[in-house]
Amino acid sequence: MARIVMKFGGTSVADLDRIRSVAARVKRQVDLGDEVAVVVSAMSGVTNQLVGYCQSLSPLHDAREYDAVVATGEQVTSGLLAIALQAIGVEARSWHGWQVAFRTDGAHGKARIEAIEAGQLIARMQAGQVSVVAGFQGIGPDNRITTLGRGGSDTSAVALAAALKADRCDIYTDVDGVYTTDPRIVPRARRLDKIAYEEMLELASVGAKVLQTRSVELAMKERVRIQVLSSFVDGPAPYEDGTDSLLPGTLVVDEDEIVEKEIVAGIAYSRDEAKITVRKVPDRPGVAAAVFWPLSEAHVNVDMIVQSTGSDGTTDMTFTVGKSDLALAIRVLEAAHGDIQYGEMLTDADVAKISVVGVGMRSHAGVASTMFRTLSDRSINIQVISTSEIKVSVLIGADYTELAVRALHSAYGLDVS
Amino acid sequence: MARIVMKFGGTSVADLDRIRSVAARVKRQVDLGDEVAVVVSAMSGVTNQLVGYCQSLSPLHDAREYDAVVATGEQVTSGLLAIALQAIGVEARSWHGWQVAFRTDGAHGKARIEAIEAGQLIARMQAGQVSVVAGFQGIGPDNRITTLGRGGSDTSAVALAAALKADRCDIYTDVDGVYTTDPRIVPRARRLDKIAYEEMLELASVGAKVLQTRSVELAMKERVRIQVLSSFVDGPAPYEDGTDSLLPGTLVVDEDEIVEKEIVAGIAYSRDEAKITVRKVPDRPGVAAAVFWPLSEAHVNVDMIVQSTGSDGTTDMTFTVGKSDLALAIRVLEAAHGDIQYGEMLTDADVAKISVVGVGMRSHAGVASTMFRTLSDRSINIQVISTSEIKVSVLIGADYTELAVRALHSAYGLDVS
Repeated sequence: MARIVMKFGGTSVADLDRIRSVAARVKRQVDLGDEVAVVVSAMSGVTNQLVGYCQSLSPLHDAREYDAVVATGEQVTSGLLAIALQAIGVEARSWHGWQVAFRTDGAHGKARIEAIEAGQLIARMQAGQVSVVAGFQGIGPDNRITTLGRGGSDTSAVALAAALKADRCDIYTDVDGVYTTDPRIVPRARRLDKIAYEEMLELASVGAKVLQTRSVELAMKERVRIQVLSSFVDGPAPYEDGTDSLLPGTLVVDEDEIVEKEIVAGIAYSRDEAKITVRKVPDRPGVAAAVFWPLSEAHVNVDMIVQSTGSDGTTDMTFTVGKSDLALAIRVLEAAHGDIQYGEMLTDADVAKISVVGVGMRSHAGVASTMFRTLSDRSINIQVISTSEIKVSVLIGADYTELAVRALHSAYGLDVS
Repeated sequence: MARIVMKFGGTSVADLDRIRSVAARVKRQVDLGDEVAVVVSAMSGVTNQLVGYCQSLSPLHDAREYDAVVATGEQVTSGLLAIALQAIGVEARSWHGWQVAFRTDGAHGKARIEAIEAGQLIARMQAGQVSVVAGFQGIGPDNRITTLGRGGSDTSAVALAAALKADRCDIYTDVDGVYTTDPRIVPRARRLDKIAYEEMLELASVGAKVLQTRSVELAMKERVRIQVLSSFVDGPAPYEDGTDSLLPGTLVVDEDEIVEKEIVAGIAYSRDEAKITVRKVPDRPGVAAAVFWPLSEAHVNVDMIVQSTGSDGTTDMTFTVGKSDLALAIRVLEAAHGDIQYGEMLTDADVAKISVVGVGMRSHAGVASTMFRTLSDRSINIQVISTSEIKVSVLIGADYTELAVRALHSAYGLDVS
């Protein structure tokens, strides 16, 4: 017997038929003898509709009212799923965020969970009742409904799993796991059986959006084991004989749980960055601060940074910013020209960032050089390099994205055999 | 300066444009210097959609889950109206039923309000903030959301007006007041300026469904002055000069407030009844109980009752039941044949009940005889008669409904001149 939190996203509860099929899946888990709590998102499309209403009435609407309106989407789903569960003989009860309660701070529209009062839910789970919890929401210090920001239901589920000391948090979604890379680019991409939290974070933050980043950070901090699996594809599990019916998916766990560590877990890419080069900056102490301080003041997030020193007492600084921040960054740097005293500024929005991620590279040399050689063999020019303990990222021309991802996927032996 | 509760029904908040126009109307009230609280229904169609979801997942769904799902409709509207008010510079805050709180009993789906904790709302009204309250809902003893039953938002508004000691409860709806009869039948029907609670109750319960009956009962008990008015038609009120901008509507008040009492306030009709006659029942004590006890056990509501004694020691009993209860009533009486020992049972679903209502008839004789003569002049046969202090009702063939209503409307001088 295990204690499981099951989370179903918007496409998994998109209509009444899907809600019935989610109920059947929850029943299977209950029939295995597990203690189960469920976290649900709004039926897909509902949140967008409610957000659109608020937006249309006032572009600068009060975040407290936005929260009160938008949180109803998940509340509806939780009640409907409770009804669907009861209809097939599973004892169930719905819970809105304020009822549990999920205590959050007062940052409406992007609140953080501070505590979950889970005592009542634990008692009910132990008595055999399934708790169906509305995700994405909580209650703030002023007793008003808060929401956690888009995609916040993943975070609700992980936080609830931590509060319930659950054995696992199963995130049902419209993909059947985490892949070594985007299967739309590499058809031979392979589903990972296990991935470490840190790898998941690196893959998520560079574009593999299976789980919300915050939920993975929270899982890592609270040591919650996540399983990502599909609510659409049924596996060949033999339910009759009583063995666990869970479909193959991807476990997101502590790296200690991964015995056979792959050197490289996956290849991620992002086309959301733009490159800025400030040329012929006087090479003296404080110049990096002169460049990056005004950007950070303007809330422009800077990612990869390279500085190369020339021979004439000047230096070139190259870095990337989010593509949507490029115009703002240009304005900021033009305004700061007097302070920085650069020669010229070059920008290029036509770039892609390719990252090779894996906790195994901590103990294996040669990962970066394999990357560079592979790209060089395809005549792909590397514009910027940045590395961390478990990641090597390069910036290349956007046109080469697919070619680079496919070549690297093969080079690291990730293709499904 | 007055303290006003304004209530807007589903058609008045049917879409964003209507919500904007409701906001403008609330602003006008605020600009008059009044303290204002607003009660809203769900956007029209939303409640039916949510009820349909519950019904479709399980015809015998848990009323607690139904309540949690269905109450979200009003919650959405309250947040949206708060946003719309803020957008035009009116300070506003939304309140769900549990936040106010509206304390109810635990009868999910048809809860009764037991207390309203209005202190916070009064403080905010006095500070100039408009409270936008989600109607139709409260919170039960077990801390779960309850709903008051269909049309319950009228009751929410009246109860809130009582708790706030408001000067008036303005019910905005899709008609512009209470009429002397159904204008679809009598184009010359007249809008009443004032009507007494008891008259309103008699008119509502016999088919003039402007206000929910419960809300009128509550208003009568708590002495809440109700004004029924249209949210669709704008009156010619001169807003510039600061005089009260309220449109003409109908005030529902204590009869003491009505100086010039009309003898007859209105003519109501209902086609929702069916007639049952049990013939040749032994005329002995206890026979009425033998007939009506099993019906009340089966929750069949009996309305008009007439008993006529024959010469052969038997009696005929005629009475009406709701048309939807007719089949059940027949089964019950057939099963009770041994106890009652009636000769035969006749039924007729093709009847209509016509009622003449007015508090003035307490002090005026001749109202009933005018009714009988008027119908007789049109050769309309009266099947059953029943009277109360302020009402005379007759049962006639359904085909004569319009003819009877028109003739009576003229006979009592109600036609608009």
